[in-house]
Amino acid sequence: MLAAVITRPGGPEVLEVREVPRPEPGTDQVLVRVRASALNRADLLQRQGRYPAPPGVPADIPGMEYAGEVAALGPGARHCRVGDRVFGLVGGGAHAEYLVAHERTMAALPAGIEWGEAGAVPEVYITAHDALVTQAAVRPAERVLVHAAGSGVGLAAIQLTRALGAVPYGTARTESKLERARDHGMEGGWVAPGDLTRLREQVDRWTGGQGMDVVLDLVGGPYVGASAAALGLKGRLLLIGSMGGREAQLPLGHVMSNRLTIRGTVLRSRPLEERILTTRAFAAEVVPMLERGAVRATIDSRFALAEIGAAHERLESNATFGKVVLDVPG
Amino acid sequence: MLAAVITRPGGPEVLEVREVPRPEPGTDQVLVRVRASALNRADLLQRQGRYPAPPGVPADIPGMEYAGEVAALGPGARHCRVGDRVFGLVGGGAHAEYLVAHERTMAALPAGIEWGEAGAVPEVYITAHDALVTQAAVRPAERVLVHAAGSGVGLAAIQLTRALGAVPYGTARTESKLERARDHGMEGGWVAPGDLTRLREQVDRWTGGQGMDVVLDLVGGPYVGASAAALGLKGRLLLIGSMGGREAQLPLGHVMSNRLTIRGTVLRSRPLEERILTTRAFAAEVVPMLERGAVRATIDSRFALAEIGAAHERLESNATFGKVVLDVPG
Repeated sequence: MLAAVITRPGGPEVLEVREVPRPEPGTDQVLVRVRASALNRADLLQRQGRYPAPPGVPADIPGMEYAGEVAALGPGARHCRVGDRVFGLVGGGAHAEYLVAHERTMAALPAGIEWGEAGAVPEVYITAHDALVTQAAVRPAERVLVHAAGSGVGLAAIQLTRALGAVPYGTARTESKLERARDHGMEGGWVAPGDLTRLREQVDRWTGGQGMDVVLDLVGGPYVGASAAALGLKGRLLLIGSMGGREAQLPLGHVMSNRLTIRGTVLRSRPLEERILTTRAFAAEVVPMLERGAVRATIDSRFALAEIGAAHERLESNATFGKVVLDVPG
Repeated sequence: MLAAVITRPGGPEVLEVREVPRPEPGTDQVLVRVRASALNRADLLQRQGRYPAPPGVPADIPGMEYAGEVAALGPGARHCRVGDRVFGLVGGGAHAEYLVAHERTMAALPAGIEWGEAGAVPEVYITAHDALVTQAAVRPAERVLVHAAGSGVGLAAIQLTRALGAVPYGTARTESKLERARDHGMEGGWVAPGDLTRLREQVDRWTGGQGMDVVLDLVGGPYVGASAAALGLKGRLLLIGSMGGREAQLPLGHVMSNRLTIRGTVLRSRPLEERILTTRAFAAEVVPMLERGAVRATIDSRFALAEIGAAHERLESNATFGKVVLDVPG
């Protein structure tokens, strides 16, 4: 089969699309013919040699999400049938014509969602759903602030917040990103300065001084302390990125008197049983929203597998709005 | 009735035991004849004018916990009877011969526990139980690290951790405090330097490199970041004090990759429905442990209500080990 292969650590030029052996599905696994995937920052880090693939996935083939058709069943697999349309997350190896994954880590893809759109869904919607629903337990009418509102996860979080009956707000670095996020249901947006000073003032204007119920922080660094300070009573701060810095200052008095919860999370390193639970919750709660059009992946651009280097360059440009999709032609 | 009254903000000399009107129990409240209470740091802060009493409690009578007898029922009260032995938390007003409280915010006191011992129980055990069980959801065999292990809450947390089938460790400023905490079931203890550098090294020795499951932080400041760094996968850090500093540095990479939860908490400002829930959980889960002797309040010293000033001096000395009890003679 063809796959995007990282030949050595480096820039987009180290990626080659070449022939590699097709993987064999093991016990309880299925073989999937990938029809589309999408790019994530982890793919860039992996290419640079800064984010090794976890055990059990191909070390040199990036790609953490896919949509495709079940092509064969491994021993014991009994929940899927050959030909089923599925989508899901993997620890790596999705930028290829075929991948293998445990059958419980994939969700059924509703008819009417085309491959490219489906391939852009799993990472951002599972991340946002796990953070907002499973971990932050967002409730109807709560106010949710999303940093990096124009990012893939940010847009998914804004859509999900609306679909849950809660109210999404967002920050971004440019007015044009905010403007587009508003099209996805964002109630209010704010162009954030680098250190997020005066975030609380803005939040007080939005909330009548009550503070946010939930903050989804995709940035880290100075955003963490400012986000904690922007939370009201029993607020929850979910840390899902730290590109803005690896250290944070926390205002302890505010954290205690408001009884805040601050939680860090990553998806990729989770063990199988947790990846299955996360996927089942996604299948039960998000896929119906996709099916009825209440949420919908935002696509920045599309590339064929053969153009993997150009796809990496596009994501690295930091000019994207939504997902960079990879089509894997038949 | 007699009560300890704060005549003006200041040192222990501003406290006077004087005659004040006996409170009247309102709807669903009961009048309690206080037999014993204990001192808390909040009482010292309130005396200094730095921690005003919450609405609905006497502004000038300190005292946040009590044991005593039901003396009269207010309209609607139907869970207690006159003469019942009860104990519990109040927002203030317990350093007096009588107090009123909602009947659902008190627990039945088992026979065989004398007043002075019972009066030393509610604050530390409800705080430790709420943090460890209700919020951190500690599980059998988990490892729990308690900072300020020789404090009232610290000792209660160590005893509760053992009684729950989990394993308590602790830090303190002196070897003698650790030695006495070991008598309460502490598995391992460490004399902590002011900034807690090298805490992780010590934790790695205790846990074979796995890190702690839960940290109860009664200190704050530099303890917060060091405690986060000492947690292992899915660890929980409960912040219940910040005498050591109101700002903390958080290592975000460790927080995210280990999926840590950091939560701040206070008891005093909670609304009635939460104070009831906290008391019901204490009555259901901790009182049986007290009854069978699995946990037992640690008493540093005892004073009569008339000696309230001396009791404050004792707590302010920072030389206490366990609770400063206040007896309220009949």
